[in-house]
Order: sequence, then structure tokens, then C-alpha cells
Amino acid sequence: MFYFIGMGLYDEKDISLKGIEALKNVDHVYAEFYTAKLFGTTLSAIEYIISKEIRVLTREEVEEFNIPLNAAMEKDVAFLVAGDPLIATTHTDMMIEAKKLNIQTTVIHSSSIISAAPGLSGLQAYKFGKVTTVPFPDENYFPHSPYLTIKANKELNAHTLVLLDIRADENKFMTANEGLEYLLKVEIERKENIVTEDSLAVVVARAGSDRPVVRADKIKSLISEDFGGPLHSLVIPGNLHFMEAEYLVRVCGAPHEFMEE
Amino acid sequence: MFYFIGMGLYDEKDISLKGIEALKNVDHVYAEFYTAKLFGTTLSAIEYIISKEIRVLTREEVEEFNIPLNAAMEKDVAFLVAGDPLIATTHTDMMIEAKKLNIQTTVIHSSSIISAAPGLSGLQAYKFGKVTTVPFPDENYFPHSPYLTIKANKELNAHTLVLLDIRADENKFMTANEGLEYLLKVEIERKENIVTEDSLAVVVARAGSDRPVVRADKIKSLISEDFGGPLHSLVIPGNLHFMEAEYLVRVCGAPHEFMEE
Repeated sequence: MFYFIGMGLYDEKDISLKGIEALKNVDHVYAEFYTAKLFGTTLSAIEYIISKEIRVLTREEVEEFNIPLNAAMEKDVAFLVAGDPLIATTHTDMMIEAKKLNIQTTVIHSSSIISAAPGLSGLQAYKFGKVTTVPFPDENYFPHSPYLTIKANKELNAHTLVLLDIRADENKFMTANEGLEYLLKVEIERKENIVTEDSLAVVVARAGSDRPVVRADKIKSLISEDFGGPLHSLVIPGNLHFMEAEYLVRVCGAPHEFMEE
Repeated sequence: MFYFIGMGLYDEKDISLKGIEALKNVDHVYAEFYTAKLFGTTLSAIEYIISKEIRVLTREEVEEFNIPLNAAMEKDVAFLVAGDPLIATTHTDMMIEAKKLNIQTTVIHSSSIISAAPGLSGLQAYKFGKVTTVPFPDENYFPHSPYLTIKANKELNAHTLVLLDIRADENKFMTANEGLEYLLKVEIERKENIVTEDSLAVVVARAGSDRPVVRADKIKSLISEDFGGPLHSLVIPGNLHFMEAEYLVRVCGAPHEFMEE
């Protein structure tokens, strides 16, 4: 059996009881932390709570050498990932491979930013459009796609969950401030009035921790605030229902004017 | 302190260790199962695993009499909900109320169909558009909105997660078959060639259980299959990347023709 086990959002206690139970019965425990990472814990704290040793694999070891699936040909294996499994393409690839190799699989779900950030921002889940990710830009790489996704969603009156780039191998995690700066820079190039300094945005930092930050305000106010350690993500709202506006004002500290629109 | 605690997708073991830990320290445990429900367990199994008695509240007791928040004025209270908290409007309303009453809140996340169904269907999370829900129709109520959401998403090449109506108080939970019939009936009325018998759909049944059903096929094949007990949901894919097509064919049993397009 090959168990895909989600570790959830933040620390070693976000795993489900079902995940802990499955881990009791496996012969090997692998993990990958290159698609995402748990910021509220350490490898040894996870090993302590699951009472097993974990071998953390590189992308090469997972995707080229197929170490977890090869082991699952003969033994019961658990593969730990941050968040909910199967959101990263590398995990769905493994499901296809497992099927080809006739390895039985079990998926054990956990909390995910895909559900947590909309929830924490008080915005209605069915009003979110496509998710987008802001990448780390460089000289030759500055795609407008996150901005264009927000634009397309706004045209449908939909909110946008904006994930921020992770380069776990370089220990680089984009801050909400960097993400907002990116979007404003696209606005300067495109001038379509989609994400401006006066636009409302929501910053969600450290979802899943005891004290996540959820702050709604105009971008010009948010951009100079310090939201603390990673991970950060953003929500750019479309039109607000008055209940959503009330939530952003009362729970997330948005200025009162957003309730009066 | 008022703890919003997600119970996750399916049974009493989908709660996180963090949820269990919080429950140890509270004075009262309430639950609501009218916005969603755990199908793989019973109230007594949940009480056994958390070692506390649970008072299950009606919608009236939560929304009109405010029982959980009133209790939290003086004591530490946990409020259990199926899935991830704050997805239902009734929960975000409670967050606003808690803020007004100066009650501290902690949200403990868990697995949610919003992340699990896209994952299990092998379709890329960032390619999903707006979520929609198919309601139980009646003589005077047959909204085309789920169909129109699918249409709008398809125009953006986006997949659609289609949730199916729950009337927990009447013990009614829409099956995937009923949901597909609903969509085909709208197609007959609108004739826009959006959801036809030859369209590809994915049925996700009992996500979070040990043996969820994830079946992809043409609607005319799916509509007569038996997917077992609740909860069911649907995914109506937009254009497929070849990796997504391979997943649907190899993991979810879709006909090979979908890999050749």
C-alpha cells in the first residue's frame, strides 16, 4: 500500500488522526518539502509525533529515481506532503505511476490553503474564480498572468486567491508585500485599473497557526505592513456582498468605507 | 476562547491532532451538522474519540439563540463542523458576532471537498473556476445557474467543481446521478451544447473515506452507475492537459479516447 498523507497547513499537529493511524502500519516514511513546506515545525518534531523516522527526498529522488513508489512495490510506504495531497502535479503523476505499477494507493486528506484562505478572509467560497500564483520575477521573466487572472475573475465578479511563489530549495518564500508590489508593477505596465494602490486586498499569513494574520485594507496601506514569517497569500476580492464587507471590516480591520459602498 | 474546529471530510478520524488537543481544554463542545455532515461516523464515535460529550445544535439554536457564542462569553467553547470551518456563511456570521462580543477565536482547519475533489480528480487546482451547487429542484424552482457557471468556466477553459445539495434535516443528499440528470435537463431547455450525454464528467463519492469512488466517463455512462452512499460531488472538466487526461483514463477509468484528443 502507498499512502499519500497530507500534513496540513502549518505544523506537526495539522495531520489527521487517520494519517497518524496509517503511519503506525507502514514500513517506510518518505516526505517531500519542495512543493510546499510546514513552517511551524521541524523534521524532528514531526518524527517525534509520528514515532517514525522520515527520509526527506529531493525532487530528483521523487521524480526521476521514483524512490517512494519503488519501495512500495514490496512494502507499505507513506509519503508525507505539506497541505492536502494531489494539489501538486508531481503527486498526480505519482498516482498515475502507481496505477501503472499496480500499487494500491490511499489518499489521506488534510487542510489546504485552497480552502483555508477563502474561509479566513470571510469571502464566500462559491464566489472565488481561478487561483493564480505570483512567481519570483527576474530580468527576463515577468509574466502578467496573475494580473490577467484577477482581471478575468473581476469581470465575473469573482474573488481571486493569489498564491505566492515558493522556492523551498533556496529558502525563498514570497511575502505578501512582494506579491502586492508585483501586481502594482503590472498595473503600471498595463494601466487597466485592475489592481491599484486603492484596491482592496486581503493578506493571509500563517494560516493554520494559532495566530494567523488576516488583514484587509487598501493595497497602499498593506504594502508597508509587516505580516511576520511565511507562508503568505493574498485574496483580491471582486464585488462584495454586504456580509463579506462586514467581515472584512470587523474581523480583518478593513476601513469602514468598504461597508458603506 | 471560541474554537471553530473542522472535523474534515468523512469520519471521526479526519480531525487534526490540533483539534483533539484544543478539545481537551474546553468546557463545552457544540456541533452543527445542518450545513454538512460526516457520513462515515456517528455522534457517539466522535464523542468517544474526543472524550467529551457533544451537544448537537439546530440551525435555530445556532443562528437565532446564539447558544455557542453566549456560552463562550464565560467559558472555553468548541464548535465542531464538518469539513473546513468558515466555508458556510453561518460560520463567518459567527466570527463577526464573536468580534462584536469581544470573544477571542481560534480556527482549526481540516480537509475540505473544495481541495479534495480537485485533487482526487487529478485536475490541476489552478484550472478550476467558480464552484457551483446543484439544488434540489421543485415545480417552481429549477435554476439554470449551475449550468451557466459551467458554461462561463468552459469559456475560460476552466474546470468546474459541482457540489450537490444537502438537506440534512430531511436526510436528503443529492446523488451524482441526480446532479447529472439536472444538468442534462437544463441542456434540453437551453440547447447550448455545454453539458451533453457525451460530455466528460468526474464523479467523486465519499472523499476522505478509505475507498472513495472517483470515476470519469461520458455522462451517458455515469448516469446509470451506482456510486454508493453519500456524499457525492461532480467535476465537469474544461479542456484537458494531456497529463490530466492520462490521470482520468488511468486512475479514474475514463475511456481511452479522451487521451487521444
